[in-house]
Amino acid sequence: MTSVQSEKLEKLHAIDRECIHLEQIASLLHWDQETYLPEMGAEDRSDQLALMEGIYHERFTSPEIGKLLAELGSTSDNPRGDEKLPDIERDFLRVVRKEYDKAVKLPNEFVIAMAKAEGLSQAAWVKARKENDFPSFLPHLVKMIDFAKQGAVYWGYTGNPYDGLLDIYEPGMDSAAIDAVFIPLRERLSVLLKDISSKPAPDVSFLSRGYDTSVQAKFNEELMKKLGFDTRRGRLDVSAHPFTIELGSEDVRITTRYFSDLLFSAIFSTIHECGHAFYEMSIPKELRGTSIGCGASMGVHESQSRFWENVLGRSLPFWETFFPLIKKHFPKELADVSVEKFYQAANEAKPSLIRVEADEVSYCLHIILRFELEKKLFSGELDPADLPGVWRQRMKEIIGVEPETDSDGVLQDTHWSGGMFGYFPSYALGNLYGLQFYEKIKSDIPNFSAGADKDNFAQLHAWLNDNIYVWGRRLEPPELLKKVTGQKLGSDAFLNYIETKYRGIYRL
Amino acid sequence: MTSVQSEKLEKLHAIDRECIHLEQIASLLHWDQETYLPEMGAEDRSDQLALMEGIYHERFTSPEIGKLLAELGSTSDNPRGDEKLPDIERDFLRVVRKEYDKAVKLPNEFVIAMAKAEGLSQAAWVKARKENDFPSFLPHLVKMIDFAKQGAVYWGYTGNPYDGLLDIYEPGMDSAAIDAVFIPLRERLSVLLKDISSKPAPDVSFLSRGYDTSVQAKFNEELMKKLGFDTRRGRLDVSAHPFTIELGSEDVRITTRYFSDLLFSAIFSTIHECGHAFYEMSIPKELRGTSIGCGASMGVHESQSRFWENVLGRSLPFWETFFPLIKKHFPKELADVSVEKFYQAANEAKPSLIRVEADEVSYCLHIILRFELEKKLFSGELDPADLPGVWRQRMKEIIGVEPETDSDGVLQDTHWSGGMFGYFPSYALGNLYGLQFYEKIKSDIPNFSAGADKDNFAQLHAWLNDNIYVWGRRLEPPELLKKVTGQKLGSDAFLNYIETKYRGIYRL
Repeated sequence: MTSVQSEKLEKLHAIDRECIHLEQIASLLHWDQETYLPEMGAEDRSDQLALMEGIYHERFTSPEIGKLLAELGSTSDNPRGDEKLPDIERDFLRVVRKEYDKAVKLPNEFVIAMAKAEGLSQAAWVKARKENDFPSFLPHLVKMIDFAKQGAVYWGYTGNPYDGLLDIYEPGMDSAAIDAVFIPLRERLSVLLKDISSKPAPDVSFLSRGYDTSVQAKFNEELMKKLGFDTRRGRLDVSAHPFTIELGSEDVRITTRYFSDLLFSAIFSTIHECGHAFYEMSIPKELRGTSIGCGASMGVHESQSRFWENVLGRSLPFWETFFPLIKKHFPKELADVSVEKFYQAANEAKPSLIRVEADEVSYCLHIILRFELEKKLFSGELDPADLPGVWRQRMKEIIGVEPETDSDGVLQDTHWSGGMFGYFPSYALGNLYGLQFYEKIKSDIPNFSAGADKDNFAQLHAWLNDNIYVWGRRLEPPELLKKVTGQKLGSDAFLNYIETKYRGIYRL
Repeated sequence: MTSVQSEKLEKLHAIDRECIHLEQIASLLHWDQETYLPEMGAEDRSDQLALMEGIYHERFTSPEIGKLLAELGSTSDNPRGDEKLPDIERDFLRVVRKEYDKAVKLPNEFVIAMAKAEGLSQAAWVKARKENDFPSFLPHLVKMIDFAKQGAVYWGYTGNPYDGLLDIYEPGMDSAAIDAVFIPLRERLSVLLKDISSKPAPDVSFLSRGYDTSVQAKFNEELMKKLGFDTRRGRLDVSAHPFTIELGSEDVRITTRYFSDLLFSAIFSTIHECGHAFYEMSIPKELRGTSIGCGASMGVHESQSRFWENVLGRSLPFWETFFPLIKKHFPKELADVSVEKFYQAANEAKPSLIRVEADEVSYCLHIILRFELEKKLFSGELDPADLPGVWRQRMKEIIGVEPETDSDGVLQDTHWSGGMFGYFPSYALGNLYGLQFYEKIKSDIPNFSAGADKDNFAQLHAWLNDNIYVWGRRLEPPELLKKVTGQKLGSDAFLNYIETKYRGIYRL
């Protein structure tokens, strides 16, 4: 690398760092919007977010970046730039080039208008969900779909704009590729769910005995620390929909939500978000605060969160370790509950309405429903006004239940109100990646146990660190999967895991 | 007003609105820093704040503002611009012109560097205060003083740069003018404090009986609502040092702090911050989100907060109304306490160490101490390294007590770590304005009572609205005082009030 190149790289990194800080500032506005914002503050917040989006877009599309990229040899056809540059810098250039190419195609006014509409749409969704009033949310949803379509047009997608949106969350993925994995997934999961339905359901009545939410909060705080969450570098708060957000290199926050009659809701949300947070918190120092200092993709992110939540968090060894802790917090409520009973309740599989509360077997079916609807919304086959009805109908057909209210149906998730179309498939892809990684973990760590080892899962954290976290966003998902497991994406690891587990639980 | 003028005004308002939003975004970063930021997030936060300051400064000093101001006839000598413009717009121009003139004199790099240093200085102060370690904070303090001095130089102050700083918080005020009011204040308060010292102190032992802080929090939430705080438009949180901050036209937040053995600490902080919040929350709609949509000055702001805290909050009628409420929360702890005893404890006057916990009589003496030190720090007569010693010595001489630790001495307040030199005098000026306003309130509202009327102080809120809030920042403090009371600034109203009140309590 020449000294001129080194100087150019330094300049590019300075702009990149500023952009990351602008994103983090916008993230704080978001975090606060979901956690502490007073009811009437929504309109100003929406303006503030739009303003930040505009400033970010303006910086990130400044011609100076295009000039520096070109001077470092990075073009749309050769994004990694000059071969003499260090690998890490070439990976950096690839990501910046791809993002830059995408960003410069969106006019600044478009970005500002979309951000503003998003703020209002989110507020309208919160209200509509609370009041079971889909029609009041519909105009916002239509707007968000139009913005997303228009964005895909700006990016040059000429077919179904949905493919352009999928690429945001899962680079290189399109709807045909997803169909190819989702079809076997749906077939084998349907069989399993049907088999399970023929067996008696576990006793879950103890879960709704009325668990004081402030005691739940204390348990969740303790649990996340025992999983390895460093509260000097993050925190846990409450929001309507749990999420993880990075507000700084040393500030990763998660949220959960408490229901006194749903003991598991907060627990598994907390574990899930911990999985996301560990990924963000463990990015190597030299990548932090840069465009490659984050997770590889939404799907790989979900591979982490769902691995912690399900593969570890819903396993018997995990609860053999943590059951005494929760029993300490709820001695009366759990007096007559054994760890086996607790474990079986944590793995009850049955058709249900709410995605984030769904069991491991039916979860992917919830995703497949959304994926189908999104495809049709963007191909024009489905009118947004017809969504509530189509939702109810397809829920019945795919999962076997029908929501009584739209709040428990089409309004349940925040993704569409936030314009995140194409995000849902990542959750299911995460399941697949996660189990492919887990096969490697078990072969690399002899006698691996999902119960906490004495030092807060240190062995597991070390493995994830050396194999996944260390790469940040340097590799695209297929490359990462190949590097870690030597394999391509497939559904077998997940399906074998889930069939074995559930055949055991339900004695099939 | 011509259509060309109207168009120019619209453009100026659009930029102004954007600047206000940028300020609000920076305020959220600050609020979060003081309330919820994880320990290790401080460094990134400091970078984020510096970045926002830079962006704000860049926007607010854009030549377009200067051009629009000039086109509307606003110059440094005639800031209110063309006489044909509506009064409200002329007041707007005056404020924007004054701020613009000040802002363009500060180089952008200077503003960024100062903001970054401020973030680190705040973090260092929090740590130093916790660990009673002034030397670790000293280099930050020196830096903040240098930045403030340099700022005054940029603004063209050739004498003591301190006068330039005073003008930020209290327009038109300089150290000579403050001396003129502080001298009689100090003389009469010293006599009063001495007289009080000859009398037996009220029994305050019940205040440290151990009041569960989560119950305190519930009481404070209830109390603020009863004073008229609309929680749809704001919220109450906890921070090391209580403050009020505006994060949006409909989002004004206050903080307090809880000590189980200091029952009054949180209560009077909450009432104090409510006074600030009511002012910000009640700015007329047509001024909100503009440069004249805020309080007139720091001093006038303090006139509101200290009026609610002391004149109302430490009065007998107030507690005749609210004592049953607090007794409901602490029935055991307050079982043997009468409202009279509670009232007298709330007004114990005695030499003490901590400004924010000081009684009404000695409070101004705390301010006079800081004012003296600030003057000398900026004239060069006092070396910052000597501050802890000089602080102890002057505390002894002025107030009669000496702190054992710097945490209870020179490190107790956040102002200096935040670079807010020249702010302190506003607190005492607030006392003076507040009592001048109160004389008018009593003459305008017959039989005014500091106990809550049935509709949450509606009469008082209406008066404050019509006389103070309605002006926003349209008038400078002396104009506002004249308009409301017909008088100039003086110390008699305050001194007469406090002498009467304390002669009653202590039977002098």
